[in-house]
Amino acid sequence: MAKINEHYRKLPAGYLFPEIGRRVRGFQEAHPEARVIRLGIGDVTLPLAPAVVEAMRRAVEEMGTVAGFRGYPPDQGEPFLIEAIRQHDYLARGVEVGADEIFVSDGSKQDSGNIQEIFGLACRVAVTDPVYPVYVDTNVMAGRTGAADASGRFPGILYVPGTRANGFAPPPPPVGAADLAYLCSPNNPTGAVMSRALLADWVAWARASDAVLVFDAAYDAYLSDPALPRSIYEIPGARECAIEMRSFSKRAGFTGVRCAYTVVTRGVTGTTDAGERVPLRELWARRQSTKFNGVPYVVQRAAEAVFSDEGRKQTGEQIRHYLENARLLREGLGAAGFEVFGGEHAPYLWLATPAGLSSWEFFDQLLSRCHVVGTPGAGFGAAGEGFLRLSAFNSRENVDEAIARIRREFGR
Amino acid sequence: MAKINEHYRKLPAGYLFPEIGRRVRGFQEAHPEARVIRLGIGDVTLPLAPAVVEAMRRAVEEMGTVAGFRGYPPDQGEPFLIEAIRQHDYLARGVEVGADEIFVSDGSKQDSGNIQEIFGLACRVAVTDPVYPVYVDTNVMAGRTGAADASGRFPGILYVPGTRANGFAPPPPPVGAADLAYLCSPNNPTGAVMSRALLADWVAWARASDAVLVFDAAYDAYLSDPALPRSIYEIPGARECAIEMRSFSKRAGFTGVRCAYTVVTRGVTGTTDAGERVPLRELWARRQSTKFNGVPYVVQRAAEAVFSDEGRKQTGEQIRHYLENARLLREGLGAAGFEVFGGEHAPYLWLATPAGLSSWEFFDQLLSRCHVVGTPGAGFGAAGEGFLRLSAFNSRENVDEAIARIRREFGR
Repeated sequence: MAKINEHYRKLPAGYLFPEIGRRVRGFQEAHPEARVIRLGIGDVTLPLAPAVVEAMRRAVEEMGTVAGFRGYPPDQGEPFLIEAIRQHDYLARGVEVGADEIFVSDGSKQDSGNIQEIFGLACRVAVTDPVYPVYVDTNVMAGRTGAADASGRFPGILYVPGTRANGFAPPPPPVGAADLAYLCSPNNPTGAVMSRALLADWVAWARASDAVLVFDAAYDAYLSDPALPRSIYEIPGARECAIEMRSFSKRAGFTGVRCAYTVVTRGVTGTTDAGERVPLRELWARRQSTKFNGVPYVVQRAAEAVFSDEGRKQTGEQIRHYLENARLLREGLGAAGFEVFGGEHAPYLWLATPAGLSSWEFFDQLLSRCHVVGTPGAGFGAAGEGFLRLSAFNSRENVDEAIARIRREFGR
Repeated sequence: MAKINEHYRKLPAGYLFPEIGRRVRGFQEAHPEARVIRLGIGDVTLPLAPAVVEAMRRAVEEMGTVAGFRGYPPDQGEPFLIEAIRQHDYLARGVEVGADEIFVSDGSKQDSGNIQEIFGLACRVAVTDPVYPVYVDTNVMAGRTGAADASGRFPGILYVPGTRANGFAPPPPPVGAADLAYLCSPNNPTGAVMSRALLADWVAWARASDAVLVFDAAYDAYLSDPALPRSIYEIPGARECAIEMRSFSKRAGFTGVRCAYTVVTRGVTGTTDAGERVPLRELWARRQSTKFNGVPYVVQRAAEAVFSDEGRKQTGEQIRHYLENARLLREGLGAAGFEVFGGEHAPYLWLATPAGLSSWEFFDQLLSRCHVVGTPGAGFGAAGEGFLRLSAFNSRENVDEAIARIRREFGR
């Protein structure tokens, strides 16, 4: 008799974004005339940069020729892309990363969901709260937790709350309190950024705890202050305790193109029950070569083009556009009396809900009264209750219109 | 202390194909003048069909425009591709499959590796032997087995041997002997095909055992006899016990493009410990929405083009080219005294090794004496010992040359 993986049933009925989709479709069907502005799911809206389109077009043509055709991509990624990543994302900032430490993939969602597979089931996982749901859900599905409590928290996971008091950038828990910790900076959903000093505290914590940090830097392109660290490997000691993930999704509008990468430095190890140290790089390489088959050639050429002079200029303009949207949202809603966080080094705004509304109540009111879609903070964890995430990924016109509608309905 | 997933350490040192790659590189470095012909890894060689290139080029241009840009793809796949699959791969053969039962992905390797996640760890897994290593390795990594024995077999997995006597298309084991069985027809590596009657036996077995069949039809395009079933759902009762996987890799040269799909019919269920029936479709949808982010838009347009009139004609010509290579290999090596199987409805030939050589010994001799790369049968499981797989994916010139070299060195 085929038994199912019952851990799946511990998850709430739907993944957050499908649930939002269902509510928005329901509203739209009941009000077909309403022009809904979507600031919910963090999906980019600007078209691909011309340099990216041109590189992808050339690669497509190549694939139609005998000389240019490529079959299975190399497991870890095309050398041309790995070298571009090494040069531009690391060496240019003084960080040395080896080509064999970089693993190209089809998304940071996949990588951050799959990384837990290489760890033992007994590992205690820590996440900051609110949190990108994938870190938690994939550990639940693997069986590292009990069933959720009334607040939606899973026993077995250590939640480290981001609060007003710590600026949504929490310090590490006590030494030894967890074995594996997920960090995301600039943060999804709060838009908060971890300072160099705070990241150094987390690295020190991981080393003292013999724990591993999974550092999700999917939004690093939005760091507008050059003094802020873009990579965890800018922190001394991180090569021995941290795994880093980066994505082209938000930096170059690749949500529909699908390319990302994970760095597992040779110094990061896990331990067997017998006490033997094993480089996690070997386990991740094994995982990827067994369960993954590489990123399409045309996509890797597109990603390479992001690093060209033209590509950097054009994608930089996209980022500035979204950051300006974020500034307008932050200042416009702040002036209307909202308590607003984030949006300075991130495409996300973190709004305190008005008048004691819950996250989902405010979500529903925003939808029904303003025809604006946000993401309820509670969808990101118990500490997200009382907040709502707005995304700056949209046209200027839609952002201006959304601000005007929200001010009209909720402004003081 | 971060503990590792120790199940990974039960696997042999390298995944099969990287190990072959290492041996070939070693030979090539020692003999830079040798012109090596690669009939090892099953990777296509013909360029993409013009209809595919044109569709992908158009999609790339679209992504560079405001109106045509697409962000995150729908979780399960673009409706246009799902509909094309439904029409051409199912309705055209009289099989009804719902749009919500089709899950588009980036590869059958991924799908066949990930599918085990939705089953309980106590599920007993059956595979035919020899077997595509991913089915076994991913179950080992998940912890469903003990450590390998001397023959490389894992306790906890039921191996159902494909032999000369059963034409490498084995009948099912006794009722109740396993909960989850992987079938691949046309078979990788043996090239054998399961008849309608044999598939009906497996479906009957699965229903009697309350087991689930994972049917990997990655090579269905090579079935040259229209009477042979192309889909497990052509067998009555399969909708209640089978999951099916198809790929564009071998049917349209997509190994470097990356597109496949999995069908989980609504009738296939698993059971909880409490005896509740749960549709596996729901679990797979949850798995994919949590750990996957869809296939690139340009790739889905490319896959759609495979079903166009031009696309079917052009990819049909590619298949005929590879099948003609297979015929030449089968007849050429047969005439030279080799015992040859497969290659009639599959791009793979399954050669008995000559003169009592082991699989790896014959692999090494083929490489050093003929400069031809095969895949040692033992790499596909204990029952593959004494055999070697040759792939028909190559130019006619290389196939003719490989046959000539093998006849010269090994012919009688």
